Amino acid sequence: MIELAVDMMGSDKGPETLAQSVLKYAKEHPEVSFTCFGDEKVLLPLLQGKERIRVVHTTEIVPMEVKPLDFLRRRDSSMYKAIEAVQEERCQGVVSAGSTGGFISGATILLRNIEGVTRAGLCAAFPTLDPRKAAVILDVGANNVNTGADLVCFAKMGTIYAREVLHVARPTVYTLSNGIEEGKGTDEVVDAYRQMKETDFPGFMGNTEAREVLDGKHDVIVTTGFAGNILLKSTEGTAAMMNKLIKKAFLKNLKTKIGYLFAKPGFQEMRENMDYKKYGGAILLGVNGVAVKGHGNSDSYAFYNAIDVARRMVEARIVEKIGSMQND
Amino acid sequence: MIELAVDMMGSDKGPETLAQSVLKYAKEHPEVSFTCFGDEKVLLPLLQGKERIRVVHTTEIVPMEVKPLDFLRRRDSSMYKAIEAVQEERCQGVVSAGSTGGFISGATILLRNIEGVTRAGLCAAFPTLDPRKAAVILDVGANNVNTGADLVCFAKMGTIYAREVLHVARPTVYTLSNGIEEGKGTDEVVDAYRQMKETDFPGFMGNTEAREVLDGKHDVIVTTGFAGNILLKSTEGTAAMMNKLIKKAFLKNLKTKIGYLFAKPGFQEMRENMDYKKYGGAILLGVNGVAVKGHGNSDSYAFYNAIDVARRMVEARIVEKIGSMQND
Repeated sequence: MIELAVDMMGSDKGPETLAQSVLKYAKEHPEVSFTCFGDEKVLLPLLQGKERIRVVHTTEIVPMEVKPLDFLRRRDSSMYKAIEAVQEERCQGVVSAGSTGGFISGATILLRNIEGVTRAGLCAAFPTLDPRKAAVILDVGANNVNTGADLVCFAKMGTIYAREVLHVARPTVYTLSNGIEEGKGTDEVVDAYRQMKETDFPGFMGNTEAREVLDGKHDVIVTTGFAGNILLKSTEGTAAMMNKLIKKAFLKNLKTKIGYLFAKPGFQEMRENMDYKKYGGAILLGVNGVAVKGHGNSDSYAFYNAIDVARRMVEARIVEKIGSMQND
Repeated sequence: MIELAVDMMGSDKGPETLAQSVLKYAKEHPEVSFTCFGDEKVLLPLLQGKERIRVVHTTEIVPMEVKPLDFLRRRDSSMYKAIEAVQEERCQGVVSAGSTGGFISGATILLRNIEGVTRAGLCAAFPTLDPRKAAVILDVGANNVNTGADLVCFAKMGTIYAREVLHVARPTVYTLSNGIEEGKGTDEVVDAYRQMKETDFPGFMGNTEAREVLDGKHDVIVTTGFAGNILLKSTEGTAAMMNKLIKKAFLKNLKTKIGYLFAKPGFQEMRENMDYKKYGGAILLGVNGVAVKGHGNSDSYAFYNAIDVARRMVEARIVEKIGSMQND
């Protein structure tokens, strides 16, 4: 049996939406059971008496913008308790759609890094031009600054994730830089490039530029947390702007509106291709336990997929595999 | 009379394309004259005898991937000579569509920074959701690493550019970070934020995230060169991917193709809105002279606009205004 802890509070869409995901997932996956943390007045009417779902009452909610110390003070919050359930090995994974900052602080403080991991990294799967392929990028925001050694560690963890969870047989690995030649970029990028080249890192292909990351040819891309966060958010922002402009183009006049009626199936396919919700959110790789962070505005489909990522990570024994990677 | 130096070689599209832009611009702007550097065997048949256009023969071309020292050795290259014409004050501005690295090295080495400028910054105007508004972002790649003081200097130069060339009356200024609260981001971002807050920097609004930069509400955004380069290229890459997906959506089947015939005017408008070519390329702000770098694959329309940016910068006396900004 796989035991997952779920932080039911603190998401933008409210506990009802997350409860739908948990109920559906439990029904379809008899091998998974849930401990759901949150206000029992809200949760019991939604979840009481359901098979393999347990509710644990908590009194606090971690706010979206929380400082690490403030997180530690909220020991009776749904997020703290959910992470603690993994720390105390009552659950194997934790899923939350609450504060990203709180979740990263909480998971790194309570679960601690796996031995040999220099820094945990937040890992996101980006949709690409190839509908069957995601680009795994880390760190997208757990850290600000990272060393070359951190980037090499991210490369190892990202490779394990791509291989074991996304089933890419031989993942290619790239350092994100401002040019493809060796020597381009900041010191830590140059250092990571050199280390991976010298050690013949499996699948290492050199630098890639931000222009290429969505072309469907990259499996794993490593970067410092600050640069990765900019990459993630500018990709989201540009895609959101383009979607608004597409809508505006079709709404221009009666003729273009008729055009939409004809073109709709093509654009539905496009929407499915670009749908980041199918990847369920971001994963904190490198801590002692499976920790998945759904988008703050996850709908029940996105949160269902976040749960699914956690289940697949537990099944694939990702934490143990990262623990033994130092021996590779 | 405004004298502009043009590097006619080293672009992807060849000197013929650039010559078209120069000819058209000279015809439409009697106040501008050109010195065109490049292989006279190619250039004379295109430009000889044209009013206010002079050809200066050069024998070398700076390759796309050039190291700074290698640039300095190519003293008879079209790019070196064009920049030198500004250094020696025979021209007031230089425009090139050749190697970006070579152009940045050459312009910073030959023209040197304006007194008081800690670092020159490559500045790009990004199209936004608001068709009448561009976001001015710097540095997008002249540097790797920058200090807080550099970012404040970028903010001053970007403000002057937005005000004098883009005619924004009171430009808003933001630091690019991984969260909007004060204290978010890397040390230099936190430092720049603090300095601009303490000095009541005109228009300073705090941090912005990469997700928001294209929403049409930001006039000037400052960032380190490495992060800015990632922002620029991921915006370009995501927009390119979305454009491919739009094309694919319309080509799905006969029905969607008919849809395109109806929707076409809306999408033409969208293309115009998103057209980065209207901004003509990137500007190196902070050196003693106007230096505009067109895209390597500039067509004659894009290069025409790059020339136009140079002319507007000379007319607005941007270099003098940056020189006196330390007294603000």
